[in-house]
Amino acid sequence: MSGTADVAVIGAGPVGLAIAWRCAERGMRVVVRDPAPGSGASAVAAGMLAPVAEAYFGEEPLTRLLVGSAARWPRFAADLHAASGMDLGYRAEGTLVVALTGDDLAEAERLWTYQTGLGLPITPLRPAALREREPLLAPRLRGGAYAPGDHQVDPRRLVPALRAALDGAGVPVRPEAVGALSTVDARVVVVAAGCGTAPLTGLPIRPVKGQILRLRAPGGAPPGFLHVIRGYADGRHVYLVPRADGEVVVGATVEERGDCAVTASAVLELLRAAAALLPEIAEYELVEARAGLRPGTPDNAPVLGALPDRPGVIVAAGHYRHGIVLTPVTAELIADLVSTGVPDPALAPFGPGRFLSSRFLRGEADSGWN
Amino acid sequence: MSGTADVAVIGAGPVGLAIAWRCAERGMRVVVRDPAPGSGASAVAAGMLAPVAEAYFGEEPLTRLLVGSAARWPRFAADLHAASGMDLGYRAEGTLVVALTGDDLAEAERLWTYQTGLGLPITPLRPAALREREPLLAPRLRGGAYAPGDHQVDPRRLVPALRAALDGAGVPVRPEAVGALSTVDARVVVVAAGCGTAPLTGLPIRPVKGQILRLRAPGGAPPGFLHVIRGYADGRHVYLVPRADGEVVVGATVEERGDCAVTASAVLELLRAAAALLPEIAEYELVEARAGLRPGTPDNAPVLGALPDRPGVIVAAGHYRHGIVLTPVTAELIADLVSTGVPDPALAPFGPGRFLSSRFLRGEADSGWN
Repeated sequence: MSGTADVAVIGAGPVGLAIAWRCAERGMRVVVRDPAPGSGASAVAAGMLAPVAEAYFGEEPLTRLLVGSAARWPRFAADLHAASGMDLGYRAEGTLVVALTGDDLAEAERLWTYQTGLGLPITPLRPAALREREPLLAPRLRGGAYAPGDHQVDPRRLVPALRAALDGAGVPVRPEAVGALSTVDARVVVVAAGCGTAPLTGLPIRPVKGQILRLRAPGGAPPGFLHVIRGYADGRHVYLVPRADGEVVVGATVEERGDCAVTASAVLELLRAAAALLPEIAEYELVEARAGLRPGTPDNAPVLGALPDRPGVIVAAGHYRHGIVLTPVTAELIADLVSTGVPDPALAPFGPGRFLSSRFLRGEADSGWN
Repeated sequence: MSGTADVAVIGAGPVGLAIAWRCAERGMRVVVRDPAPGSGASAVAAGMLAPVAEAYFGEEPLTRLLVGSAARWPRFAADLHAASGMDLGYRAEGTLVVALTGDDLAEAERLWTYQTGLGLPITPLRPAALREREPLLAPRLRGGAYAPGDHQVDPRRLVPALRAALDGAGVPVRPEAVGALSTVDARVVVVAAGCGTAPLTGLPIRPVKGQILRLRAPGGAPPGFLHVIRGYADGRHVYLVPRADGEVVVGATVEERGDCAVTASAVLELLRAAAALLPEIAEYELVEARAGLRPGTPDNAPVLGALPDRPGVIVAAGHYRHGIVLTPVTAELIADLVSTGVPDPALAPFGPGRFLSSRFLRGEADSGWN
């Protein structure tokens, strides 16, 4: 199909695969290239779809995008289930945000006030009400809040489901690396290569290390809690994501480095914080400790849109901590952009142009550019 | 060689392989049988040769055996190096025993007084002297002691070295399970099957779970300390064993159960205690968390000697937490017993007979017996 593709997608993580799938649905001829499909951040992600709990001061455009994409998730999951036959483990119990100490509660309450002011659904709960929802929460918790719209999905099911959907649509995923965009022969090239986007485009996308644990409830039982638990524990942020099959994901560190070593301190602090919020977790089996690299940008928001100085090249990368939740909106808006050539107004805050003016000033490599 | 072997050794852990090697050296025709050689407790062991730090109240005969076997280790390591060409990582810097709190120190001092009373080499050290020997020890340590004769070896090198020595001696190690001793055709059968010894002999050898971590100093450097560190940290016992290649073994739990699950609580408590004694360890990479099953006996001492009611069957099992340190003395005394038929007096406290009178009273299985 080389030379005849309408779209070549560089990168076979959830974002790239979903873009390819949505483009194929719109009738385009698509090819995906990635030397190691699904081997990036998605394999280490927790799968929280948390637009509210992840709404931080000064990130309103990103929050709007997160909210819009989370709203698309039920439909996205249903479409993908229909196309692939695979269940993504979508769960809608919602998220409890909890605070261990008075200081933790004060920090959390500032954020809840901000989130409420944006009109986001988050309801403060007293300790008794928290423990009524989740009896295994630590008795000493000082307070919390319920975010009913912050759901979850199993991120490790996403890439296999998308690949099955692409197989069904006749879209090849080629295990090939791309050294420079000029070597890619297609009408439009979509760069969805996560951290690999930087050397291809010169965009300031950097690896942000995250360490994450996977635990398992004893004896094959489901975990003793149903909600996603996000917490503040003596100044440390931690989350616990329960899955129906017994798995509990505990994460995650945020480290400005690009190695994938699992460190004793990260494992110690994650387990300590998780057990402080939900003591039962200490009796769970520790089945995996792993580090991954999130593709971060200077303003924590993704890069979505056409490269202004490079006709026919569109970027969909830099999703940082939000790749799973942002997959549906990214796929649909980028497929529309490829199809129509006209960017949806929702993309306006996220264009690559916001970083390109400073690119040459900072002397960054532009390998892959002509 | 079936039907013509002088000795069949059941079990290819360090003890069984070393017995086979020493028997072959004495001119006997030997065969070893084990469905999974080296897959038992030795793969999870730390490799401390610690007769002094492991000398506990009321275990004087065991202590004498530990001291005697530790004294044989340098020669054993040299012999095995000569026979196999492999280095066992034997290191003689000695062990520092340290106490974090006043309560920890009080508990430790009771034991040091007892050990000193037995004439064992252990010298109390003040905090300043401890940190002079190991500058990375936590400043808040309340005290410690130096056990110059408590050395270490890399237990994962032991099985490969013994197998190489046996290859050189023409002794086959057959990957075969033994369901009952009556099916083994040899003049003498030595049962050195660790936890697997119980169903073959009816002896009360039970699994005692131990969880252990392997860490690695950053950047391929050797660890920042040279001594084995054994500690009491807020009532928890922990040890740290540094290896020249950068590995640090941190262990171990002692649990009366027979599963091999790695639990969050064990990892948390081991890391917390280790980092309390040697804070730098927190920055190390966590490369492995694993559980193994030690073969424990009712009095914590091994079972060494001929089964009184089963001619031609010798047991060398139940080494509990001391399998590595006891390998040389076990191999030599059992090889002598096989060769001469006369037990060394040193074996007297450890005979199987001490457990057999109660065996039938407790209705234990005697599968493998006629």
